[in-house]
Formats: sequence, structure tokens, C-alpha cells
Amino acid sequence: MLHFENDYNKGAHPVLLEALVASNQEGLSGYGTDKYTQSAIEKIRLATNCPHAQVTFFAGGTQTNQILISSMLASYEGVIAADTGHISTHEAGAIEFSGHKVLTLPHHEGKITASEVDNFIKDFYADANHAHMVHPGMVYISHPTEYGTLYSKSEMEDLSQVCRQHNIPLFLDGARLGYGLAARDTDLDLQAIAELTDVFYIGGTKLGALLGEALVFTKNNQPKNFVSIVKHHGALLAKGRLIGVQFDRLFTDDLYLELGRHAISMAEQLTQILEDKGFQFYFKSPTNQQFVIVKNEELPKLTEAGIVYSFWEKYDNNQSIIRFATSWSTSQEDIDELRKIL
Amino acid sequence: MLHFENDYNKGAHPVLLEALVASNQEGLSGYGTDKYTQSAIEKIRLATNCPHAQVTFFAGGTQTNQILISSMLASYEGVIAADTGHISTHEAGAIEFSGHKVLTLPHHEGKITASEVDNFIKDFYADANHAHMVHPGMVYISHPTEYGTLYSKSEMEDLSQVCRQHNIPLFLDGARLGYGLAARDTDLDLQAIAELTDVFYIGGTKLGALLGEALVFTKNNQPKNFVSIVKHHGALLAKGRLIGVQFDRLFTDDLYLELGRHAISMAEQLTQILEDKGFQFYFKSPTNQQFVIVKNEELPKLTEAGIVYSFWEKYDNNQSIIRFATSWSTSQEDIDELRKIL
Amino acid sequence: MLHFENDYNKGAHPVLLEALVASNQEGLSGYGTDKYTQSAIEKIRLATNCPHAQVTFFAGGTQTNQILISSMLASYEGVIAADTGHISTHEAGAIEFSGHKVLTLPHHEGKITASEVDNFIKDFYADANHAHMVHPGMVYISHPTEYGTLYSKSEMEDLSQVCRQHNIPLFLDGARLGYGLAARDTDLDLQAIAELTDVFYIGGTKLGALLGEALVFTKNNQPKNFVSIVKHHGALLAKGRLIGVQFDRLFTDDLYLELGRHAISMAEQLTQILEDKGFQFYFKSPTNQQFVIVKNEELPKLTEAGIVYSFWEKYDNNQSIIRFATSWSTSQEDIDELRKIL
Amino acid sequence: MLHFENDYNKGAHPVLLEALVASNQEGLSGYGTDKYTQSAIEKIRLATNCPHAQVTFFAGGTQTNQILISSMLASYEGVIAADTGHISTHEAGAIEFSGHKVLTLPHHEGKITASEVDNFIKDFYADANHAHMVHPGMVYISHPTEYGTLYSKSEMEDLSQVCRQHNIPLFLDGARLGYGLAARDTDLDLQAIAELTDVFYIGGTKLGALLGEALVFTKNNQPKNFVSIVKHHGALLAKGRLIGVQFDRLFTDDLYLELGRHAISMAEQLTQILEDKGFQFYFKSPTNQQFVIVKNEELPKLTEAGIVYSFWEKYDNNQSIIRFATSWSTSQEDIDELRKIL
Repeated sequence: MLHFENDYNKGAHPVLLEALVASNQEGLSGYGTDKYTQSAIEKIRLATNCPHAQVTFFAGGTQTNQILISSMLASYEGVIAADTGHISTHEAGAIEFSGHKVLTLPHHEGKITASEVDNFIKDFYADANHAHMVHPGMVYISHPTEYGTLYSKSEMEDLSQVCRQHNIPLFLDGARLGYGLAARDTDLDLQAIAELTDVFYIGGTKLGALLGEALVFTKNNQPKNFVSIVKHHGALLAKGRLIGVQFDRLFTDDLYLELGRHAISMAEQLTQILEDKGFQFYFKSPTNQQFVIVKNEELPKLTEAGIVYSFWEKYDNNQSIIRFATSWSTSQEDIDELRKIL
Repeated sequence: MLHFENDYNKGAHPVLLEALVASNQEGLSGYGTDKYTQSAIEKIRLATNCPHAQVTFFAGGTQTNQILISSMLASYEGVIAADTGHISTHEAGAIEFSGHKVLTLPHHEGKITASEVDNFIKDFYADANHAHMVHPGMVYISHPTEYGTLYSKSEMEDLSQVCRQHNIPLFLDGARLGYGLAARDTDLDLQAIAELTDVFYIGGTKLGALLGEALVFTKNNQPKNFVSIVKHHGALLAKGRLIGVQFDRLFTDDLYLELGRHAISMAEQLTQILEDKGFQFYFKSPTNQQFVIVKNEELPKLTEAGIVYSFWEKYDNNQSIIRFATSWSTSQEDIDELRKIL
Repeated sequence: MLHFENDYNKGAHPVLLEALVASNQEGLSGYGTDKYTQSAIEKIRLATNCPHAQVTFFAGGTQTNQILISSMLASYEGVIAADTGHISTHEAGAIEFSGHKVLTLPHHEGKITASEVDNFIKDFYADANHAHMVHPGMVYISHPTEYGTLYSKSEMEDLSQVCRQHNIPLFLDGARLGYGLAARDTDLDLQAIAELTDVFYIGGTKLGALLGEALVFTKNNQPKNFVSIVKHHGALLAKGRLIGVQFDRLFTDDLYLELGRHAISMAEQLTQILEDKGFQFYFKSPTNQQFVIVKNEELPKLTEAGIVYSFWEKYDNNQSIIRFATSWSTSQEDIDELRKIL
Repeated sequence: MLHFENDYNKGAHPVLLEALVASNQEGLSGYGTDKYTQSAIEKIRLATNCPHAQVTFFAGGTQTNQILISSMLASYEGVIAADTGHISTHEAGAIEFSGHKVLTLPHHEGKITASEVDNFIKDFYADANHAHMVHPGMVYISHPTEYGTLYSKSEMEDLSQVCRQHNIPLFLDGARLGYGLAARDTDLDLQAIAELTDVFYIGGTKLGALLGEALVFTKNNQPKNFVSIVKHHGALLAKGRLIGVQFDRLFTDDLYLELGRHAISMAEQLTQILEDKGFQFYFKSPTNQQFVIVKNEELPKLTEAGIVYSFWEKYDNNQSIIRFATSWSTSQEDIDELRKIL
């Protein structure tokens, strides 16, 4: 079986497993107060060039989004997002479940623009009835987006400026951040992201960890008593070390970026293969996910050939958008094999 | 001042006040267990031809919508509504605050169609990832809609059928129901509404009551221990009689419909005046609300002339949509005066 | 029937009804922006000697408690209350429904003491695991309490001081405040309450209004965008005038206090009658509610005699605690008749 | 350092780590649909003698409790628990945060009795005002309790019977279940627990897993669309295999019970040592946690000696209750060393 369906179908990168094995017998304090977690935090502070960053580790992305968003919004506020944003579509209503509306803007290849955000907020305040409406209280973007696309530094600067003008935080969902940082032509590095956002998270689950996302408050703006907030959401792991050890290792010797670069290199080959074989692209993405449009009748053939892909969405009544993804775990052999059998 | 801004700028219809005065000195049991409330329920059962209807009275529409919707949805379900639906736009996120997403469909003059609802639900279940999405658990419509438009009986039958096929309830928000029932060419009466919906409410606040909405479960489908649900939402009035007495009177001698008819008659004259004066209509509505497009520079002149209207929304950078509404309290003198000074 | 079961079995005091009738035909703006509501707020500012008080009107007590408490607590905070407090026992979990724990202290005739509050908070912070516990974020008291008892000024000063030391607000539930203010030996007046609490409400429903409670923030501490908070709880009345007109009248010519004094005068006679007739008191209360212990077999005789009382709670397997209450609406004839037939 | 502070200060049992390493390179489907998770479920069905058990894995206990309880209660219901229950005290209000009150009963060495539960429920329904109160909707017990004590089979049968009579589910929190099952004189095995409860969870985090709790519905009573419920709580792990692999191994060759037995054997030696050294017991527990009362001035000496214990709670102003715990990871060397230096 050739696994191209997503970037989380293998366990963990071997060096992370090794780190877990190596630290396994140490008696450590619980709930993220251990030395590995502390070390991981320090390394993230260095990597983001944000010495006072406040960092908390979570088990997954939906959990991170829900806790962060609900902890920063007032009860009457909603979060602005692209209509294709993960929080809008594929979190089973986790944001609404926590009491908040997702205020959607039409996406542009998965992205939203500063001027559309600005207009939305200005129109809100211009409306005589706005006290009866959900207040825009935060902007959510994903980078890479759900379609694998990336914001440029200049787009991010504009978004950042609009948020500051309106005094609301900018939150970046980095579930696949490593793949964005490693993209060929991106001008957005980790330091710029830390500077331009108010809070963001660095995804581990999709970048070689067994699980784990690192939520980073960059402006000394972590809500008070955040541990209690995490706890009453049921998200405080007794053995916080499990994530701390992995992130400590991911941020040693640039491993996080290296895993990203490997996946991008595999993705470039993947894209070439898909092009060579005549696939029609839905979006050409600069990161590890590629979306192509396939006739429904062709889908079973892929499966029979041992290729595992991901159904994305209906394109029309006869065709589907499917996703191929590379990851830290994709091997050159996988790629070569794919080229052979496609 | 000529009050055409909405249908709730006066107190109550005088006969309702008289009923309150007449019953004022009676010692009655609390929380809606009094005889007037019971009598109002019986009269609503008769008027809806639904002998086993379960009826509860609320202080306002947003409260009714929030309690009804959250009491009938599972935690992972959302409610389908037009993107112009009151719950989508002007309830400050009350539905999301109670944990549920509003799943919006594009409106057609304020309405949604059965086939679009059907497609939405079918696409949901066809999606391989639908367990990660908000499940459609109810359909919400308003009648009249937020633009004063009405569903035909045949449109309602189709919506009802789609809901039954998918085994989800159809809920009708009747904040202005009386104006819909009294419209000239409607073929939807109260009995048909009771039959075709699973639950709906009869608006009192906008039809001559000081306050009050009657929520009617028509299919013996009221959630268990509904009084406790109402109570923990903070919506159980100690003096339930206050609403019971008014609805008892509204449903005596067809007063509710009579108030509706009066407003419609006033609205027909209003529409003629607006036409005669050359106003551009945004929607021509068969009920008591009329929406016209006005240059922003003309707006202060209306106000100076003593005409109170309602800003509805921006039309473009130079023009606004404004609303004129008649009601049970609009007098022929108001209309005559408006004709004179417009 | 002699109505002594509660203080809300009649409609409204006649002068409030008259005020509603007198203002009925005026076209007024909605949602509490009308002139009567504004006038009521000004009069409450005067009566509380709190010129910058922020006042909002609600339809009922549970709603007021839920909205106030959830709007002032952080998500991880709970509210300290007596285990007999209304929010602990008889609001169907409205506080928990809004996400917050009620942290109970054992009551003393319905009251809690400053030193017990202080110890509770100190023990919380002394606990090594307190990040895993609900943080005490507010103190709730009722005055009169659920047993009709009253705090002295000195007790209130102590509670106020403890709250300020720990930087949490003191909230006073005044559902029956008028009966407390009018009690014979109380040294707590409205000004002292406004000074010593951070927020409190003045009950109208149980003091002669059809409905209505006035929530008063005394320290310029009303949460931002409070109207939107009220709205998304479904608690914003379209015809805010309905409560505004009544409170405007209640705070004209000291009517609110006068109604309280009348009920106290009736209660003193009631207490004397109960004593004379040999009833055993559970608590002797200085306000309008009196609690007596009655053999279960005696209860039907009261009912047969036409006396309506209120079952309060089981005393033991053979006896019940029942409540007799006077109110603004109790007449001397009611009292005389009660004396005759008891 | 001698780690006796808790049962989660080490990583995972080595064979679980080996299983993770062994399966690491396999491409598996996500969200708990992989073959290891399926195998773990089958083994749990066998071990509980409950062939149709519905099993879901979670990352931690508070999360499991919150999701289970809120998914089974109606909005107006609360959960009955001992006042020392974990959900009452140390989950930062996670149950209230999800909208539900914890209805506490006084504990007896951490336990509650069937007759007290029965009386509580009967009193609730006997109360004339119970529609205004939180309805008892579930019984929560922990086994072992927070004090390490255990229910006997007969006590559990009584609790089970009371719950069935009142038609509410009995939920057992088994965060430390393995230590209970392995206790010397217990007559409650896994099969009996599955039979007598409606739902329970088997704790992994405290029994040798990196993380993981297995929630088991035993009566074909898992709420519909439970995956979506888990997802909107943010609790669905992308790499569900992480827990599946561990539980698959824990339920192979009776490892789970074996780990429990080891800890019990260590605990018996620990208890003997504490006795020999003259410690005063708060509770003598049959499981892996032992609680002793120590003068506050003695506490620093323990720390200086390299003994890590857990502060439990204040006993009085001069003494504290502290906890010593053994676990799957306690070695004979640890015990011998402790004997030496205590």
C-alpha cells in the first residue's frame, strides 16, 4: 500500500520515539511541569525569537482551536475565518459548541484578505443594529491553508495591521506549519509569524510527533489561569512529558524544519508525477498537499493499484476532488513506486 | 411623530390592557399554572385544530428560538436556516451561545427551498468526513420572513416532506405570524401551519401584546421536563398570568387575526403611497413591512418631516435600504398624515 | 381564598397599571432605550446615591442571576453562596447551565459569614492543587435571604471587605429587597447596599410589578457590550418600556419602600396571629415570609379553610415546614379573616 | 529520588513502548479506525465478558468524565457523586463547564451508599418544587475511590439496583481500575463491573500507558453519533493508534491485571513500612494509595531525604494529609530504599 492519503498515517519520527524511550524511566512531575516540557518551551522561544512567549502543549488541533478561541473571545464575540477554514467545516462545530459563531468570509484558494476583513469589521460597526449581532473578536487563518496554500509575508503584514487597528487578535492555525515554513518560495519564517500574529500553534501531529501541538502566545497575552482553562476543557495531560519530550527533540538541530523540507521535496516529485500522468489540478499547492480532479469511475482503479488517497469533496456529479499528501514519512521508494503504478 | 419604524413601538392593544386590569386582583398560581394560561392554551389548540398541542409562553422571540432549538438538537447538530434568518443575523449569536451552529443556505427573498434543503442534507451524508462536520438537525424558517415575504402552502408542504424524509423537525418562527395569516393572497392558515410543522411560535410582542410568544409543539414532541429546561434558561416568569391573560384575549373573537388584517389594510395603503411618491422598492412584501431603497442624503429629510422609519442595511455606498412597517396600532390618521408629508 | 402562599399571586400594584395605561399610546423606541426606562435609571441612581450606577432591567430573577454571574466570572471561576441560596437550590441549575459551579458554604439562617468566606478563599489558594479546582470568583448573597432573614450593616461591611481583599465582586440578590429595606430594625438602607456591594438587583416582580428586576452595577464595572450579552441570553425585551414604566413609577414618591412597609406591617400581624394560635416557628423572620412547622395531618385542614400557603420543605417524616408570606397586596381584611379562621 | 508521589511519574511500561515502536512504520487509518484499536476493543469485550460493548479511547480522565457525563445527561440533569469525587473537586469544574451540576452526597471513606442515593432521588421527586431543581440523572462513583478504597460486589449490586429502579445510568470512573481489580480481598472483577454498571472506563494513564482511558458502554447505550460528540469536544486523536496499540498490548496476556498486582504487592510492603515507622494513617487503603497524617514540620525532612510524596489536604493547622502511591513502575529497590531512609 502506498500511503498518500494524509500526513498522519505513520507513528512518530524514529528520533522522537528514541527520545521517549530514553526518558521513559525518569520520574517526572506531571501536567507539563517537567524539565523536558520546560526545555521545549525554551527552544520554541529561541526559534520564534520571542523570549517571553507563553507556550502550552495540546493533544490535537481541534482541541487547541477550541480552547484558544473560547479563552480569548468575550461571550458575544465570534471569530472571522475563511469559509473553508478548518474551524468552519471539519471540527464538528467545536467552536459553536464552546459558544461562539464562526463569521465566514469567502476564501481565495483557502485564504482571506486584509481588506475583506477590514470591510467586514467596518460594516459591522457601521450597522445601527450591531449590538444585536455577533461582534467580530478575532481573525483565524490557517497556514498552510486547508488547500495547502500559503500567505505571503506582505499578506500577513496587512492582516496583522488590520487586526491591530481594530484591536482584535490574529490567530494562526499551524497544524501543518512545518510544511509551510519549508516551502520553496515562502518569505514567511517562524520569527515573522511570531511577530505578526498574537497567537499561533505549531503542529506536531502532522509533522512526525505521535501527537502534540504547541500553542504560542507571542504578546504576553495568555489568558490568566490558563492551566485551569485547559483543565476544565479536559485537555491537561497527566503525563505532559509525552508531548514535551517530542517537541524538545523536534526543536533540536532544526529537526522540525528538516522534516518539513523532506516532505516538500517529496511533494515536488509527486506534483511532477501527477502532471506527467495528465491529472487535472484543482489547486497547485506549494506545500505537501496536492488536490486533483478525478472522474468518479477512475477512483476504484487507484485503490486497486494500492494507492491510498483521500476523498476531499464532490467536484460535480461525475468528478471528485481528491488529495495526495506527502509527509515527513514519505520515502523516495514510495514516490518511485507511485510513478511506476499511476 | 409618525411611527412607521416597526410594529412594537406602542404598548398593548387596549383590550389586552383591559383584560390585565380586570384580572389584576385575582390571586393566581405562578409559573404559568394559572387558569388564564390554561384557557389560552385551550383556545390555541382550537385555533390550530391541534387538540393535543403542547403550548408554552415566552417573553420574547430570541429566547423562544434559543430554548426551542437547543432543546431539540443533539449536541452535534446544527439548524439549517436562510442566511437572512433572524437566528443567523440578529440574535447576537444566541444559537451559537447555546452550542449550535446555524447552517446557512442562500435566501430567496428571505426564503429557502425544499430542494436546497434536501441537497444540503444529502451532500452532508454523502461526505466521507461527515462525522467531523455539524449534522443538520432541524430546519428553521420564518413566516413572514425578515423581508416580509411568505411561503405558499405548496412550498411549506415540500419543506415539510423533506424534513420528514430526513427525520428532522421543521420549526417556524412566527414572530409576525398574524401579519402573514392576514395577508391578502396567502393560502397558509394556522391549521395548515400546525399540520406541516413540528413546532412553531405565534408572536404576540409584534401583534399587540405587551410581550409574549406562544410556542406550540404540534406532534406530541415537546422535550421531557420542558418546564425545567425553560427554568434553567432563566425564562420561566413567576407571573405567567401576564402572558396567559393576553393570549387568552388575543385568541378570543378572532382578535389575533383581526389585528393582522388591520395592519395589512394599512400596509396596502402605505405601499400605494410609497409607489405614488416614486420610491424604489427593494422587495414588495405582501405583509406589514415594506423595504425601499433611499439615497443616504434623503434620509435626514424623512426624519425632519417627523417620519420614524428603520434603517435596514447598506444598499451601496450612497443608498440605504430602509423599512416602513405598519402594525395593529397604525391608524388611518397616521396613513393620511404620511401621504400628506412624504 | 386567603392568599398567603407567596408575594406574587396578584397582578401589579394599581398605580403601576395606571402608568402603563397612561403611556400605552406613545410611540417609543425599543429594547430599553425609551424615556421611561431612562427616567427609571435616573431615579434609581438618586435613590442609591450612586450617580454613575449602570442599570439594566430584566424579566425575572433567575435570568438576572444567570446573566450577571456568567458575565462577571472567568470560565474557570465559580460563585460562593450559602447552600440554601436560590442559585444553589431553586434555579434548575441555571448557573451550572451557564458553565459555572456554585461553591456552597453552610448557611446560618440563610446567611453566610465573612470569616467563612475568607477561610474558604484562603484554603483554596493554600491548596497545592488549586489550579485543578474551581476558583472562587464572586460572592453571592440574598437579602432578604430565602428564609426572610437579613444581614446587618456590620455583617455586610465585613463581607464587602473580604471580597475587596480577595479582589472578587460581592453580588446581592434583592428579589425581595423592598421587604428587607422596610424591616423594622434593619440598619441597611439602599445607599449602604450600593456602597458595599459591587452589583445587586432590586426586585420588582415580588414587590408589585407585573415583572421586572433592576440590576445595578455600582462601581462602573458593568461588562463591556452588556446589551449584546443580554441579547444572546435571549433576555432583551423588545418593549423594554414595559419594565421601565413600572420602575419609573416604583421609584416615584418612595412607592417601592411604601409597598415594603405595608407588607412588613401585615407580616407583624401575621406573626402575632401564628404565635397566638400556637404555631411552632422554624425561623422567626423580620421580613414578609414566616416559616412554621406543621404536622402533615394538619395541612389539609388549612387548605379546606381556604388558606393558601406554600410547602417549603420536609421537616421530618411527620412534619413539614410551610411558608406564609404577606406582600404589597395583602389587605387588612386578609389578615382579619386569617385571624378568624386559623 | 524516590518517587512515591503518584502513579504517573514514569513514562510507559516497556512492553507498551515496544509495541509502539514495532507498529510505528505501518500506514494506518486515523481517528481510531485502525486495526490495533479494533483489536483492543475486541480484547476488552472479551475481558469484560460483554461481547457488544461499545468502546472509545480518550486521552485523559477529566476529558472522559466530561464527555461521558454531558453526553448522557439531559440539559436539566445533574450527576450524583460523593463530595470527594474527582468530578466534584479536582476537575476545575469540567462538569459544570459542560452545563451540569454535580449533586454531592457526603462520602464514607470516599464512597456513597445505595440507600443514600435512593433517599436523595426519592426526596427530589417528593419535593413539590422539583421542576425548579436540578434533576438527578446519573450516579458517578470512582473505583478505587480518591482515597484508594473499594466498593464490595454487594455494595455495587445495591447501587446498580437503585439506579435501575430510578432508570438512571450508573457510571464508574476507573482511572485506577487495575489497582482495584488486583486488590487482595476484592470480590469485584471486570465482568461484574461491566454487568453492574451502564458505562465505565478502564484507566491506562495511571496503569502504565503513556496516556489513554477506555470508555466502555455495556448496555448498547452509547449515544448516537458518539464520534461527532468526541470530535466537537476536541477529543478525537488523529493518531488514535497511539492509544489503540497500548490498550491492545495491555489486554494481551493479562498485562493490565499483572501491572495492578505488582503495584498492590509493592503497596503492601509500603504500608508495612509506614506502620513500622509509626506513621498515623488517615485511611488504610486496600489499593496502591496510602494516606498518612504528618506534622507540617516533618514534611521538609521527607523532601530532604529524597522522598517524593504528594500533599493531599490540610488535616488541621499543624498537620497535613500526604499521599504515598506505588504503581506498575515501583521497584523492589524503591521499596527497600524507602525502608532504609524513612
